[in-house]
Amino acid sequence: MTRKNAFYAQSGGVTAVINASACGVIETARKHRDKIGKVYAGRNGIIGALTEDLIDTSKETATAIAALHHTPAGAFGSCRYKLKGLDENRREYERLIEVFEAHDIGYFFYNGGGDSADTCLKVSQLSERMGYPIQAIHVPKTVDNDLPITDNCPGFGSVAKYIAVSTLEASFDVASMAKTSTKVFVLEVMGRHAGWIAAAGGLAAGEPYNLPIVILFPEIPFDQDKFLARVEEMVQRHGYCSVVVSEGVRGPDGKFLSDQGMRDAFGHAQLGGVAPVVAGIVKEGLGYKYHWGVADYLQRAARHIASKTDVEQAYAMGQAAVRLALQGNNAVMPTIERRSNKPYRWGVGTAPLKKVANVEKMMPRSFITRDGFGITEKCRDYLAPLIKGEDYPPFRNGLPRYIRLKNQAVPKKLPPFELK
Amino acid sequence: MTRKNAFYAQSGGVTAVINASACGVIETARKHRDKIGKVYAGRNGIIGALTEDLIDTSKETATAIAALHHTPAGAFGSCRYKLKGLDENRREYERLIEVFEAHDIGYFFYNGGGDSADTCLKVSQLSERMGYPIQAIHVPKTVDNDLPITDNCPGFGSVAKYIAVSTLEASFDVASMAKTSTKVFVLEVMGRHAGWIAAAGGLAAGEPYNLPIVILFPEIPFDQDKFLARVEEMVQRHGYCSVVVSEGVRGPDGKFLSDQGMRDAFGHAQLGGVAPVVAGIVKEGLGYKYHWGVADYLQRAARHIASKTDVEQAYAMGQAAVRLALQGNNAVMPTIERRSNKPYRWGVGTAPLKKVANVEKMMPRSFITRDGFGITEKCRDYLAPLIKGEDYPPFRNGLPRYIRLKNQAVPKKLPPFELK
Repeated sequence: MTRKNAFYAQSGGVTAVINASACGVIETARKHRDKIGKVYAGRNGIIGALTEDLIDTSKETATAIAALHHTPAGAFGSCRYKLKGLDENRREYERLIEVFEAHDIGYFFYNGGGDSADTCLKVSQLSERMGYPIQAIHVPKTVDNDLPITDNCPGFGSVAKYIAVSTLEASFDVASMAKTSTKVFVLEVMGRHAGWIAAAGGLAAGEPYNLPIVILFPEIPFDQDKFLARVEEMVQRHGYCSVVVSEGVRGPDGKFLSDQGMRDAFGHAQLGGVAPVVAGIVKEGLGYKYHWGVADYLQRAARHIASKTDVEQAYAMGQAAVRLALQGNNAVMPTIERRSNKPYRWGVGTAPLKKVANVEKMMPRSFITRDGFGITEKCRDYLAPLIKGEDYPPFRNGLPRYIRLKNQAVPKKLPPFELK
Repeated sequence: MTRKNAFYAQSGGVTAVINASACGVIETARKHRDKIGKVYAGRNGIIGALTEDLIDTSKETATAIAALHHTPAGAFGSCRYKLKGLDENRREYERLIEVFEAHDIGYFFYNGGGDSADTCLKVSQLSERMGYPIQAIHVPKTVDNDLPITDNCPGFGSVAKYIAVSTLEASFDVASMAKTSTKVFVLEVMGRHAGWIAAAGGLAAGEPYNLPIVILFPEIPFDQDKFLARVEEMVQRHGYCSVVVSEGVRGPDGKFLSDQGMRDAFGHAQLGGVAPVVAGIVKEGLGYKYHWGVADYLQRAARHIASKTDVEQAYAMGQAAVRLALQGNNAVMPTIERRSNKPYRWGVGTAPLKKVANVEKMMPRSFITRDGFGITEKCRDYLAPLIKGEDYPPFRNGLPRYIRLKNQAVPKKLPPFELK
């Protein structure tokens, strides 16, 4: 095996722990200098490869790389950019080969979700279809938890923990206020297609707190009458209620509930969130005073309350990706395998990329209660271990000490390339 | 000094640390059983006193009371209810005296903000004007940080820490996405009248991060052209920008920016937040892709990321309130006195309630940069120590272990009372 450089890049929406995977890739590669020369990171994902905008991670100290372990978001920049098929845009693939050749790159690590797995799969085909020897390994990551085969996705556990903790805390708040003021709190969470994140709000509805929480899943068409009846029942019984609503909830007409054709006084369309819509429905239907919040980026960037399990798994996926490469694999992705539930034990498996790319894993219907507003014991058993453990970043002067790398560019050797 | 029971209640919007003050009151009272018999908590603030709905805190174990130290929100329930003047509603004051007499209450501890200080002041006058001997001590609390005399208010430091940490984390996120996706992130924070909480977002704009953050204060009338120019400058220089906007920002016409006369497709008025409005202005004016979040209750309930300084001060205020009572005071409030900045040192002072009630402390103009979009060094020096230190709650199975007390009612001795 000759020594080759590696390319690593981050893709799609970032997470609290994607840099822990980067840390796993880089630290493990550094332990195998006989086989892996330098790790070049793509600045802004695959775009960095296409534009030959490479970052030389060997310029970073071991301490700086170790600090990626506790730093949220994408240290090298991410991108939303999907490679077209080889036949549709051959030019991009030829460019990738030029860049890889110019920088002696033989390993391609791509850290992302379903779309990115597709990009990684396409790159893996360079070997076979264009004769350039490359090993492409996908490193799983997505807060949406919707990759197939792997038991769960790095990034999800920390969002789930953030949403569970926030729902718990906000519910304590509204419980205190309910006598004379707010009775219903609505929290909007991410999840366009799958309700995994919303489901995490249900963890506060279980033991030991048993809080009155109504969940609105994208999997369940919104039924206004049933919803209002459920909220009313909760308020009558507990005095208050929290609603966790997925951004992707749709009405019976199939349209997003957030897409209410809202207009300002001047008639301009406003893209609102779903939380104010749901809060408005509660106010109009039941007359209760409400508050609403939208977690948005806060939920997926919240490294300060990351799940220890999630951080460990994210690191392990980076580590495993390098091991898979060193074992000669191409077009694969390391996975998390659940070995047992109580006690929770997990290990690392492998999945072929062609079974991963563009496949979305939805919430099983058996994870949602029959009435559609809560999670089942089965779902709770699945989620609980994923939020377990705390892994606090170091703090200084009251703020987390997150690392910003030097991100020094590798000198370019090729003419510029225009992205289409 | 004869032995008397004490009444304690929580009032107004709750915080991450108001229960730490409750803990300070109850633990300190328990050390002085010769002078203070039982501590009765009002269920839902002053309403508990009026309706004789008292909670016997002596039924709680020392461990349960100690757990209040790390439990957010109001353990006994809060209220938004302001006593009218003695001449306007004499009936309420007579009822208070009846309840206090029936339960042998000689100490009144009221834990709240400016409005609550007014209620506490009115109760303190029972002694002088109605001949019932009571010592009324106000325990300061408000996330708005707008009480006068005290250097800062318990509850504020933890919100400030949450907003500073969240702004930092979300900024890391948007920085990763900016190349091909979101360039501007807008975070809405509390603060109807004063920009203290919004100012905390500015802590991430200082050393060591120097992030591009634009703050919109309620103190500064919104100037759309200047705002867009500032955002554009940030995006040009850094590639992205975060905006922290106070819910109380008003346009040049004096109207809340959030009050845009938004209507849904059916013409129903929607009470929106200010974040989507600001995001819409950015999109329309600059065309950048944006994301927005609304922290709402999450910010003030976030005990998981409370400031250690804040927790200590909240506890100290509860402690000091009892000491002031034992020293024979009436109509006073313990205060936080800043003794030095570097190193930060603070002590406990005292303020007469008549100088506290209904007085709002605004942000000094010298705390806001000349352009109106940032905080000055002076403001940073003021804020920095208040977010210092972490004070994590214990966790179990991935969730904080917050206490819910038994809240056992004291048997009623009086006929019911109708609230007006």
